[in-house]
Amino acid sequence: MTAHEAGAEGGADARGRVTITEIAREAGVSVPTVSRVVNGRSDVSPATRARVEDLLLRHGYRKRPASNGTRAALLDLVFNDLDSPWAVEIIRGVEEVAHAAGVGTVVSAIHGRSGDAREWMRNLRARASDGVVLVTSALDPLLHEELRALGVPLVVVDPAGSPALDVPTIGAANWAGGMAATDHLLGLGHRRIGLIAGPPRLLCSRARYDGYRAALEGAGVPVDDALVVPGDFRPESGFRGCDTLLDLERPPTAVFAASDQMALGAIEALRRRGLRVPEDMSVVGFDDLPEVRWSAPPLTTVRQPLADMGKLAVRTVLRLTRDERPDSARVELGTELVVRASTAPPRTRPE
Amino acid sequence: MTAHEAGAEGGADARGRVTITEIAREAGVSVPTVSRVVNGRSDVSPATRARVEDLLLRHGYRKRPASNGTRAALLDLVFNDLDSPWAVEIIRGVEEVAHAAGVGTVVSAIHGRSGDAREWMRNLRARASDGVVLVTSALDPLLHEELRALGVPLVVVDPAGSPALDVPTIGAANWAGGMAATDHLLGLGHRRIGLIAGPPRLLCSRARYDGYRAALEGAGVPVDDALVVPGDFRPESGFRGCDTLLDLERPPTAVFAASDQMALGAIEALRRRGLRVPEDMSVVGFDDLPEVRWSAPPLTTVRQPLADMGKLAVRTVLRLTRDERPDSARVELGTELVVRASTAPPRTRPE
Repeated sequence: MTAHEAGAEGGADARGRVTITEIAREAGVSVPTVSRVVNGRSDVSPATRARVEDLLLRHGYRKRPASNGTRAALLDLVFNDLDSPWAVEIIRGVEEVAHAAGVGTVVSAIHGRSGDAREWMRNLRARASDGVVLVTSALDPLLHEELRALGVPLVVVDPAGSPALDVPTIGAANWAGGMAATDHLLGLGHRRIGLIAGPPRLLCSRARYDGYRAALEGAGVPVDDALVVPGDFRPESGFRGCDTLLDLERPPTAVFAASDQMALGAIEALRRRGLRVPEDMSVVGFDDLPEVRWSAPPLTTVRQPLADMGKLAVRTVLRLTRDERPDSARVELGTELVVRASTAPPRTRPE
Repeated sequence: MTAHEAGAEGGADARGRVTITEIAREAGVSVPTVSRVVNGRSDVSPATRARVEDLLLRHGYRKRPASNGTRAALLDLVFNDLDSPWAVEIIRGVEEVAHAAGVGTVVSAIHGRSGDAREWMRNLRARASDGVVLVTSALDPLLHEELRALGVPLVVVDPAGSPALDVPTIGAANWAGGMAATDHLLGLGHRRIGLIAGPPRLLCSRARYDGYRAALEGAGVPVDDALVVPGDFRPESGFRGCDTLLDLERPPTAVFAASDQMALGAIEALRRRGLRVPEDMSVVGFDDLPEVRWSAPPLTTVRQPLADMGKLAVRTVLRLTRDERPDSARVELGTELVVRASTAPPRTRPE
């Protein structure tokens, strides 16, 4: 431990923050032991570590940079999982802005497992990261609380948990996107339009669904609940959802899948039955992943500006590290319909 | 600057490394000025910075951790660009192993621009990264030299530059993969097999091409240079390459695209002409990106273990940071043919 880390002699330093000395006193362990915990080292017994971590958390202890202004800045970009093709889009945006600001981007995945999250939190504290961009569809309230206690600025990208979160969030205009996708199909003449929806617990799913309903109602088309099937944003669920729609007595002539990956699954379900897109069924996705320009056929979809969302998240976190307020606690970037080859007017079918 | 950074009084520290004091003396500037350059701060004139950086480089100065064993470990993962869908596969593998070792993964893109590379190098020095995994298809020799001078362990993933590089490299069995793809098509009965090749300056392209030739020759099928068209691994080039093959007087009945993205482009070129895959033409890719399980039709391809390559790269870099030797200077992980729905026997055509 350096003298710097020990801080002032008393319980709190000049800025009123608790010091490592105070934590050691309260935990009944030596200052070097607390230091080892703070720095994420392994040579501390689990029981002691738990006691010290609990105190660090309770007091909102935050490690200060090793020496003022000399350490290179770091920002943590945290995903639940790195298995989605849109992760790289967000990384690209975050890295671009962080790099330009001389800030390194530390990428982590916590797999929704509390053990991984706890270890990540330990490492975050050890490397004294300057800010966190959390990309998640469901923010663990415990994680959120620990971050707040740590005093590290936090911005959430594409949140879908509680709308009452008091951290700045960057989302996309999901409702408007759902409406644009459905309006496009209505404009082509479709009246029976299926929806493969996202997980209902996510706000973004709900917003896209509400946009779909709003467009139908705006066009005077009654909403048929049989045409709405559940999905989880992954291709497999799009495949199954489309199968369900095709098994209906009166299948839809078009389907809006609430993610590109589900749209690809839907196209595969159609292909397996020998049906063609868009001749036999129109398909619209949501995301505009780079690869859907090259799906067969190229996908009509709602562009979600993932890289831009990452960029804005970094700018917001950097503002917070300078103790500036963000422009708004909740920002939605616009979505945009991109028309390609997977949509066309319906064929007139004999009823 | 801390006392620690200034090191011993003499020109080199106990381990024979040059100190910041010696650099300051030689540059004719103050020790704090050198410290500012080392730490990537902006309040140094460009001329002074250039002089000091030159000396740091020449002497192989390497910033030591802020205090022994207390700083959280970091590893730099560097891409040329973050616009490829396989980047996230490598990030996933690297992050998994690094996370388990308590090491943070800093992701950067240098866009092949020397300015970006230089700035990244500056940040790397400032954050005292413990190792570098460079993912590149063309290693800038200058970058390589600077890293060596910095003394940071380096491992290269999927290299395609000079085979004489004296850094550990992790690649895939490209030649065997090219042969497996071609053998599969030969086994289905194809005799006119097109190749959409990768950029010839990259070793991996050459290896895949040689594997293709070896399979044809092994089957007694003469190699027809007209059936080999150039590409750059991107979908557009696969689209154009396939068009070129279809315009031949006797087009092939199957095509091996040396990347999945080019295979998707080829499928789109076929679709635009009203040709079906695999009925009218079989297509094989290379990479096995997650999304090609959901291409229409699902793509037969050669699996390149990108995540595993990332994992092995981290393990190798961690060995190097402990001054252990890697098992081998050049490792190739196995590739594997994955048969899906884009390949079938050729239709007998009237000649």
